[in-house]
Amino acid sequence: MRIVAALGGNALLQRGQRPDADVQEANVRRAIAALAPLADEHELVITHGNGPQVGVLALQSASDPRLTSPYPFDVLGAQTQGMIGYWLLQALQNEIPRQPVAAIINQTLVEANDPAFDNPTKFVGETYDEQTAHKLAAERGWQVRQDGDSWRRVVGSPRPQRIVETRLIRLLLESGAIVICAGGGGVPVVRDEVGELRGVEAVVDKDLASSVLAEALDADVLMVLTDVPAVMKDFGTPNQAPIHRETPPGLREVTYAAGSMGPKVEAACRFVEVTGGMAAIGSLDEASAILDGKSGTIVTTTGRYRD
Amino acid sequence: MRIVAALGGNALLQRGQRPDADVQEANVRRAIAALAPLADEHELVITHGNGPQVGVLALQSASDPRLTSPYPFDVLGAQTQGMIGYWLLQALQNEIPRQPVAAIINQTLVEANDPAFDNPTKFVGETYDEQTAHKLAAERGWQVRQDGDSWRRVVGSPRPQRIVETRLIRLLLESGAIVICAGGGGVPVVRDEVGELRGVEAVVDKDLASSVLAEALDADVLMVLTDVPAVMKDFGTPNQAPIHRETPPGLREVTYAAGSMGPKVEAACRFVEVTGGMAAIGSLDEASAILDGKSGTIVTTTGRYRD
Repeated sequence: MRIVAALGGNALLQRGQRPDADVQEANVRRAIAALAPLADEHELVITHGNGPQVGVLALQSASDPRLTSPYPFDVLGAQTQGMIGYWLLQALQNEIPRQPVAAIINQTLVEANDPAFDNPTKFVGETYDEQTAHKLAAERGWQVRQDGDSWRRVVGSPRPQRIVETRLIRLLLESGAIVICAGGGGVPVVRDEVGELRGVEAVVDKDLASSVLAEALDADVLMVLTDVPAVMKDFGTPNQAPIHRETPPGLREVTYAAGSMGPKVEAACRFVEVTGGMAAIGSLDEASAILDGKSGTIVTTTGRYRD
Repeated sequence: MRIVAALGGNALLQRGQRPDADVQEANVRRAIAALAPLADEHELVITHGNGPQVGVLALQSASDPRLTSPYPFDVLGAQTQGMIGYWLLQALQNEIPRQPVAAIINQTLVEANDPAFDNPTKFVGETYDEQTAHKLAAERGWQVRQDGDSWRRVVGSPRPQRIVETRLIRLLLESGAIVICAGGGGVPVVRDEVGELRGVEAVVDKDLASSVLAEALDADVLMVLTDVPAVMKDFGTPNQAPIHRETPPGLREVTYAAGSMGPKVEAACRFVEVTGGMAAIGSLDEASAILDGKSGTIVTTTGRYRD
């Protein structure tokens, strides 16, 4: 089978952990120990988030007196692809020494007129008072919004349309390599008026990007791996319970926790609806059990899987 | 022919230029405009330096209060592979839209007992006056050295032994892709006592790494592209003159300018001696003319080329 496995950025840097290199490398080694067994029998593409990591680099860049203006988010995303890709690459090479691994830098095409650019909602970077926020917005062309008691910069999270390097990824897979790509959802780019690719200030959701990639690769399975064991129905009520099997329409009806579960559910449902394949949302540590149907929330067109 | 073209880090960020993203992107576009014509008829691998860029990220990381310790140079090197690789990738895709391009993250194996770890010589980051350099060295545990009229930080530059991803690069080339790799000479790694790869605090010379790669790929040509038109004989004397054709033994005897020309000459000579191929040192803007034998210093076993 051909599997696309999406790792949460929080799995690589947990809340409250220092963003030091050694902390993240240890997390990556644990993640790879859980994923590597899948590569014994299957083609494997690994994608990953970068929320915490790109936040750290954005703050570093914003306080650098050598820069006239901070690095834009396309460039920062590319930096995290290099850093996290290196950790994943090395961990895989150490875990499966004879298996070729390719960690590639890649871009994700979004639409220049995506409504997310006019209504940015993704908070990034530090908090400011209102006056400073408006001053920075004027100076740097930022959009800013109130976040609780303070103000922060917001960027758009446009819908991923296409992984620009899809053909390359398919070639690598068919040559027997494990492929690491779509880090941070891919570096966001648009096609400009003369057809050229150009980076944009945005953050692409990595689960939606992984779904688009899995679809383009005709993958059999999309695994969305995170730090919770399953999607919960009736979340936050006394009836809360994990969902083991569901169809896309059934899963869309569930009231799940707010925050990052929305795009995960959307990514899984979309993949199943378009390809008829299997998608799963579950715990990174249970990757093999999920594939065996023994863990996670499994989404198929029929709501059945290895039963 | 199979060509490995090594771009100087200074070609991507010239001395005195601000390290802003837009400045570097414009430089990258110029570099790619000069290189892209080579891909029409030849297999092309592009490697690149990262001296100025890794210096900027090292300074950002060193002043980040969120980190217990700054990112080590392997991680910083991987960040620059992501950033510069993204710029090169996008510029190539815009310049040659139908040509597949792969920008990969890669590692370069060095020896843990390389004497360079005890005697660091590789300049990284900004220039300082002598007093500031010594002050920073004391504060941050840096080693610093004089570089022309000013002072800079130095780190170890162990000799590259092998590009870990050689097999992958060969596969990509043979599939028709332009390959961007060995950024900053590759992320420096050693094999530890149990045979696992592990990053080290070092910067690999990108010209020597490119030579090792060109050799492993059985390349026909190694082009070391920089901001000077040729190696000069009798440098700094009234007899100073560009060298057009030379053999490796002849070139090794020349008194060239100190600094970064040494590794370029060594990389070119080594490649010619080991493979019998052609190496050249010259101006990035003249890449096509160099291949035609009309510019640069050309090194062959006979000292002749298209004469």
